[in-house]
Amino acid sequence: MTAQIIDGNPIAEKLRKRLATDATAFTEKYGYKPGLGVVLVGDDPASQMYVRMKRNACEKAGITSYAHILPADSTQEQVEDAVRSLNEDPKVHGILVQLPLPKHLDEEKVLSLISFEKDADAAHPTNIGLLAMKGREPLYKPCTPAGAMIILQELGVQVAGANAVVLGRSNIVGMPVALLLMEANATVTICHSRTKDLQSYLKDADIVVAAIGRPNYLHGSWLKPGAVVIDVGTNKVDDPTSEKGYKYVGDVDLESALPVVSAITKVPGGVGPMTITMLMVQTVQAAHRLAEKTENA
Amino acid sequence: MTAQIIDGNPIAEKLRKRLATDATAFTEKYGYKPGLGVVLVGDDPASQMYVRMKRNACEKAGITSYAHILPADSTQEQVEDAVRSLNEDPKVHGILVQLPLPKHLDEEKVLSLISFEKDADAAHPTNIGLLAMKGREPLYKPCTPAGAMIILQELGVQVAGANAVVLGRSNIVGMPVALLLMEANATVTICHSRTKDLQSYLKDADIVVAAIGRPNYLHGSWLKPGAVVIDVGTNKVDDPTSEKGYKYVGDVDLESALPVVSAITKVPGGVGPMTITMLMVQTVQAAHRLAEKTENA
Repeated sequence: MTAQIIDGNPIAEKLRKRLATDATAFTEKYGYKPGLGVVLVGDDPASQMYVRMKRNACEKAGITSYAHILPADSTQEQVEDAVRSLNEDPKVHGILVQLPLPKHLDEEKVLSLISFEKDADAAHPTNIGLLAMKGREPLYKPCTPAGAMIILQELGVQVAGANAVVLGRSNIVGMPVALLLMEANATVTICHSRTKDLQSYLKDADIVVAAIGRPNYLHGSWLKPGAVVIDVGTNKVDDPTSEKGYKYVGDVDLESALPVVSAITKVPGGVGPMTITMLMVQTVQAAHRLAEKTENA
Repeated sequence: MTAQIIDGNPIAEKLRKRLATDATAFTEKYGYKPGLGVVLVGDDPASQMYVRMKRNACEKAGITSYAHILPADSTQEQVEDAVRSLNEDPKVHGILVQLPLPKHLDEEKVLSLISFEKDADAAHPTNIGLLAMKGREPLYKPCTPAGAMIILQELGVQVAGANAVVLGRSNIVGMPVALLLMEANATVTICHSRTKDLQSYLKDADIVVAAIGRPNYLHGSWLKPGAVVIDVGTNKVDDPTSEKGYKYVGDVDLESALPVVSAITKVPGGVGPMTITMLMVQTVQAAHRLAEKTENA
């Protein structure tokens, strides 16, 4: 069997074309561009890179980004003020607080300040609650899980009735992707660090979402033949053969998985491009929603 | 093997004694009793019975209940007004809207009106979101799932690392009990009407929570020997041998389960008494929280 290696870029590209059209429509109607507000605290190189990538992607899509870049020793008050000013700015429609925040800050308090209606990154508990509840719809969905679901859809994977195993229960990936899979009628098992005999769950799984941040942890021999694997892990490992001296690998050991699975996402370049794209898609949705609300007010 | 049949009443009784003490302490400190506001719309006999039971239980525990009993043809506005008046009443600390509401009403809108701080029944999406999120704590937990967890604790069941299967994904039982089990470090699988081959999940389950509302559906032969079963189903079935002509049975076929499992909750009288108790526990917690907040304001 030759597994399909899923490149997220062409899937993301299709969505970006559509969202650029939506952004242009907004700009023509209201005379200014949809706006994404970003709060970045500190000088973590990975976070800075993500923020830079988001800014570039926004520019291409016709979205203005408004960045508050604060020093690592900022006070709680200063970070909260940055969120508040984005909440109040009518040109800002979506807000992202880049995580993790430095440890001295109260992350929960900062995130809960984000205006529910500008929560394009779905960090607010009310959006998560609505996502968890049957018959309710959140305004926005967490971006990486939403991107993973679109990849499954593009692949034509039958999610309803499938046995889906999610590895990891983080607030930004594991838990919400489990809720989205359940909403799509999969039978979902959430495995985590306290799970005993992980392999007994994996061996029957039609869909596996791995989000535990352990390089090459999951061995192909643990997987069901023909499984579809979404690898959300992006782990930096030493690589003496590369110029940079490092490379990124997923949570799944690709080499042993390839002969077993039917499809697996690339790392990097699988789910990653979808995350930024979904943030922009939801920012443009937020822009239309908020502008219409102001018009009707 | 002789299975233990779990009676919820003595467990509930212990909690009720403690909560009555807490309620008395509140009354002595503030000069009035903790208050539970209840909204009941229509004349569904089961709902009326639940409301009556809640009122009696409150009285015994030293909690005043404030009931808004509205006719079945009440308008959305009238039901919303009842919730708003309970929100504003400083003597009301917990609010319960008895579900289901008549079909012409917008249930989601009614529930989302309940003041987050008086949401002792945890019907508000923000409480559900906080329950779903790692490292966050809801103000209140859904009462039946919280009661089920206390039963497991009383039995000394090792939840961490256990294989737990939840049958059903309702907003009031299935989904929140899955979140609570996950918080307690079980590996949780949520099965539902679209699950294929349910028995393949049940056969390895150490803990089973059944909440699908199908009388005697789950056969003992499907269960793992020694499993602990929480049967949340309360299904009315014909019973020509009883005076009333009916009886209540659970979702699990008790007769075939008893030789297999190590413990199973009674129906009725298992989880049921815990539900009302948890509502009262959380109402008294709400009373202390709100009164302290007012004092410090």
